[in-house]
Amino acid sequence: MPRQKKNTAVPQEFRTDGRARVVIEDITPAVDGGCFAIKRVEGEAIDVEADCFADGHDSLACVLLYRRDDEADWRETPMTALANDRWRGTFAVTSVGRYRYSVMAWVDPFLSWRHDFARRVDAEDLRVAAQTGAELIEAAAQRASGDDRRELAKWAARLRDPEAPTDLRVLALDDALATIAARHPDRSLATRFPTEFPVVVDRTRARFSSWYEMFPRSCGADARSHGTFRDAEARLPYVAQMGFDVLYLPPIHPIGRERRKGRNNSLATTAEDVGSPWAIGSVEGGHTAIHPELGTLEDFRRLVASARASGLEMALDIAFQCAPDHPWVKAHPSWFRWRPDGTVQYAENPPKKYQDIYPFNFETADWAELWRELEDVFAFWIGEGVRIFRVDNPHTKPFAFWGWVIERIKREHPDVIFLAEAFTRPKVMHRLAKVGFTQSYTYFTWRNTKAELTAYFTELTRGPGREYFRPNCWPNTPDILPEYLQYGGRAAFMARLVLAATLSANYGIYGPAFELLERTPREPGTEEYLDSEKYELKQWDLARADSLAGFVARVNAARHDNPALQHDGALTFFPIDNDEMICYGKMDPAGENAVLVIVNLDPHHTQAGWVTLDSAALGLELDRAFQVHDVLTGARFLWSGARNFVQLDPARAPAHVFRLRRRVRTERDFDYFL
Amino acid sequence: MPRQKKNTAVPQEFRTDGRARVVIEDITPAVDGGCFAIKRVEGEAIDVEADCFADGHDSLACVLLYRRDDEADWRETPMTALANDRWRGTFAVTSVGRYRYSVMAWVDPFLSWRHDFARRVDAEDLRVAAQTGAELIEAAAQRASGDDRRELAKWAARLRDPEAPTDLRVLALDDALATIAARHPDRSLATRFPTEFPVVVDRTRARFSSWYEMFPRSCGADARSHGTFRDAEARLPYVAQMGFDVLYLPPIHPIGRERRKGRNNSLATTAEDVGSPWAIGSVEGGHTAIHPELGTLEDFRRLVASARASGLEMALDIAFQCAPDHPWVKAHPSWFRWRPDGTVQYAENPPKKYQDIYPFNFETADWAELWRELEDVFAFWIGEGVRIFRVDNPHTKPFAFWGWVIERIKREHPDVIFLAEAFTRPKVMHRLAKVGFTQSYTYFTWRNTKAELTAYFTELTRGPGREYFRPNCWPNTPDILPEYLQYGGRAAFMARLVLAATLSANYGIYGPAFELLERTPREPGTEEYLDSEKYELKQWDLARADSLAGFVARVNAARHDNPALQHDGALTFFPIDNDEMICYGKMDPAGENAVLVIVNLDPHHTQAGWVTLDSAALGLELDRAFQVHDVLTGARFLWSGARNFVQLDPARAPAHVFRLRRRVRTERDFDYFL
Repeated sequence: MPRQKKNTAVPQEFRTDGRARVVIEDITPAVDGGCFAIKRVEGEAIDVEADCFADGHDSLACVLLYRRDDEADWRETPMTALANDRWRGTFAVTSVGRYRYSVMAWVDPFLSWRHDFARRVDAEDLRVAAQTGAELIEAAAQRASGDDRRELAKWAARLRDPEAPTDLRVLALDDALATIAARHPDRSLATRFPTEFPVVVDRTRARFSSWYEMFPRSCGADARSHGTFRDAEARLPYVAQMGFDVLYLPPIHPIGRERRKGRNNSLATTAEDVGSPWAIGSVEGGHTAIHPELGTLEDFRRLVASARASGLEMALDIAFQCAPDHPWVKAHPSWFRWRPDGTVQYAENPPKKYQDIYPFNFETADWAELWRELEDVFAFWIGEGVRIFRVDNPHTKPFAFWGWVIERIKREHPDVIFLAEAFTRPKVMHRLAKVGFTQSYTYFTWRNTKAELTAYFTELTRGPGREYFRPNCWPNTPDILPEYLQYGGRAAFMARLVLAATLSANYGIYGPAFELLERTPREPGTEEYLDSEKYELKQWDLARADSLAGFVARVNAARHDNPALQHDGALTFFPIDNDEMICYGKMDPAGENAVLVIVNLDPHHTQAGWVTLDSAALGLELDRAFQVHDVLTGARFLWSGARNFVQLDPARAPAHVFRLRRRVRTERDFDYFL
Repeated sequence: MPRQKKNTAVPQEFRTDGRARVVIEDITPAVDGGCFAIKRVEGEAIDVEADCFADGHDSLACVLLYRRDDEADWRETPMTALANDRWRGTFAVTSVGRYRYSVMAWVDPFLSWRHDFARRVDAEDLRVAAQTGAELIEAAAQRASGDDRRELAKWAARLRDPEAPTDLRVLALDDALATIAARHPDRSLATRFPTEFPVVVDRTRARFSSWYEMFPRSCGADARSHGTFRDAEARLPYVAQMGFDVLYLPPIHPIGRERRKGRNNSLATTAEDVGSPWAIGSVEGGHTAIHPELGTLEDFRRLVASARASGLEMALDIAFQCAPDHPWVKAHPSWFRWRPDGTVQYAENPPKKYQDIYPFNFETADWAELWRELEDVFAFWIGEGVRIFRVDNPHTKPFAFWGWVIERIKREHPDVIFLAEAFTRPKVMHRLAKVGFTQSYTYFTWRNTKAELTAYFTELTRGPGREYFRPNCWPNTPDILPEYLQYGGRAAFMARLVLAATLSANYGIYGPAFELLERTPREPGTEEYLDSEKYELKQWDLARADSLAGFVARVNAARHDNPALQHDGALTFFPIDNDEMICYGKMDPAGENAVLVIVNLDPHHTQAGWVTLDSAALGLELDRAFQVHDVLTGARFLWSGARNFVQLDPARAPAHVFRLRRRVRTERDFDYFL
């Protein structure tokens, strides 16, 4: 019997040791093969799966490797075999920051030996196999130490003993000893998947947030007084009572005076015109300055602190563009494009011209300096306690810049949240999410019918984007008054609010325009508001009897009370036999909270229909009665079976948000029933 | 107006030039992100698609890069924009060997300028834009030479001329000049996708082949005479007349005598027992020797040449395993596993033992030497003119070995075809195809019902495997007599033949067992043949009246005459309202040949049903009558519209193979009709 030589070095013409027999394929989750991070929030578990297999029929062992980026050592957890050569392991991301994971697997001679041993029958075969096993266990003992080593050595000796006990099987298949041996596998020929898959772990607000957008300058005493941060502070209780947790302000910087736009975006202005907050910069400063009419940096700090005390986190709007009188235009002429006539190139989309806005020239030779300066803008506001940024039009700046700046900022401040306001083509929106944006504006704003909503939210929650694209849904913005709201009246506002707030764990409204049902467009066929707050101060009558503020509060309370509404996964649409009605359910990952939403999408007529539920998606036993409790109205109904009838009158409430109460007592629950 | 600085080096903390704004994603086709080659045959065109986009609204240019592996320079061809940021380009692989491709794209200021210029309206705007264009065109002139340079310079000068012609638009938007400028783009900030995607280009037989497996030792004069290569030569006309193009022989090497198996795989043997050809090696030699009873190497060469003269290419069976008396067992003991009792480890799957077969130990320290020796086996037979290898049980040898050996052999001999006989788990089969096997055995052998066949061939032709997994479908093999053939009689054989030969462009049968309807299993419930040819000589009565040889010839002629049957793509299943019947169509890539197949899967009863065709999948105008011509029987029918009636009596013919004749004359074709 020749003895096997010791392992030798790999001959030069072979790239790797040909004896590493396991292959690993198709690791999930993964974004573009591991080029980009998946996104999770702190405390979540990640189920990693991989195809692992080798030639032949030997047994494999597979482990999931993971670590925080800032840890030197990998941790590992065993993976278990599912069907069809698929393996699964799970690890938890316990803190914000970056993690990575990969998979390692090897052919395990000890496990193969044990698997075969259990199937052997004739005595001579068992005797020889016991010797083979002893060799393997001795090798495991060499890799072990302490008690394990002693136990294994003892076991091997007993297997080698020709006077072995009567039943070799009992000895060889001892579970406790096998567990010890499995702790000391021979991994010298293990295959490790070459890619380390990144994870960005955010704080919980990245997954679940309720935004309220508001112009502080419209918080003044009357329509002629420019509101200040102090005035905005007085507005905080109003916003907090509605149950929001993020207060988002349009840009708070000095507003350009050169080519300032007047009311309704007109080119003609008067001295009273306040201009658009997105025309950033004047002699008073640029992206790190505060518009003097809003107050001082000290006032801003007070507002941030007061908001926090009211349960509202401040989100700032970062719009990387300049008014013609922004200090950077003079200080850094190379950051802009220059026209042959010696003027700076303004924003344009021929034949349209936006002469009040100068975009940056990201192809400047001074691009690195520009990038660093823009990073400093974020750094400045982070220094002022801001951790959420809504980024204006990120799709008009290079993806590489966003990848770079977001990674740098989150390396220092992993709790920062970036929301991409990119209303643009689908692949551009997705790329921005891949390169690092925490949340993204969506097409929700224009998805109105059952078919549109179903297709879009199925894509968002089941498509590849579910790993990196976190939707943040807005029924309106200062730029967008959708036609559905223009024509549908109060019921339309209520329906769109419920849809945004229950289809998506992150959503927001632009108020008080929203809750006060502001719905007159500048002209028919446009989505721009008449007398838009973008160009003038507004005076809002918050006490109006028809305000939706109370309804908004109930919707936000439903979100707060129901974990099912705090996650985007596990959304299931259920059939309802009326195309004007939509029905869907959500369940939280623990399976403890289930919510069923039904919306009448027709704001003008009462609609009714039969819904057909799916027990698995809702954790229901459909053969028992269950209670559906409308958390908006408090109404409760007893339902049973998969099919149930619903009717919604938009004049009263265009939506049910049912919390499912699964246990309804029946006579079966009483002892005397049997 | 500040002048832009020249390009500067990338500052150290940035990985790449931040001004390269285009991103490229999701290039197709691709196997595992480019880790493995897609497969094509010579002369085919490859449509490559990619998502290419940048921030903002600038115009892009995209090119497809490609080259043969042995060419130093990349060729390129423009890609054109489809919808949704998707681009497509096409290149042809004109010769066997390896190719690679990738994609490059850049923001093109000239194209953007032209796009915007066409939309500008006011005169001053046009004047300034003309100056901007002149700068871009001058830069293009600098990159050009000869006539192009002169033309561009002249164009720029005219655009700069303040006394410019009355219509600047006509000058600026000149198509011919734009074409010249587009030839000289500024690619300094181009993005090139980092992966080069490999292509293996095979000869046409890799895509379209008809295999006939035959034991030469059963070609003798009677059941007691061991047939020889000379006898096999006499059988060639018989095989050729059936229309096959690959003649595949089981292993032709000396057969082990130690532990030789007797008839019906029995452990008891007599001196007359001829043994299994897969028990390779004896004192007479191993994998590069010829079984003396078959003849000499010279006889083998004659057989190869005669076969070729009959239109039959020789395929050899390569089974990397040894009989106990194979010379390698003594010469290379380290290539085998040794048991603690000092014997060589035979093949086993406890409690089953295959003591006549010694597998190699691919985990030996001498693995590199073993790999080289096995490579030499292929090289030896390639030296004898063999270019097709059917590899026995490749799934019990490491994937890394196959990847290595196939790549090395195809580097020298790109015309070699490897067929993987891996009846194993799906992912293992796919991995073997990924690492290089040209064709693969399939689960067709066990897919009998309409639902099974439809699901499986939809997966094969539409799933990711379509790029690398070429099915080769076998209704029977010496190891497998499927139950459908055991119980279905002659009609079952005909149906399975038609299915294999028309669903798959590569197929084969094990004969003469197949055409002579051999269908008795060793015992009920097994798929093994009674008195299997694997263990004994057989005498086949080729002249039997019930032989399917004539039917096989008609099926192969249909394949030969109809390009649609020579491709695996473009397979479409059509509804037929009878679960015992299956209907599908194929069209060749040129769209010139369309075949419609209908099979009665019930071998016992006449079945009828209505098929519903799809005009697009068959290139038909369904509002005109068309002729369906059964190329197996010669019968012709006139059909019209999408729905047509079919009835098949299995006692006569269980299948139609219709060639579609699209043009049927109607009165509309005559002048006087109008």
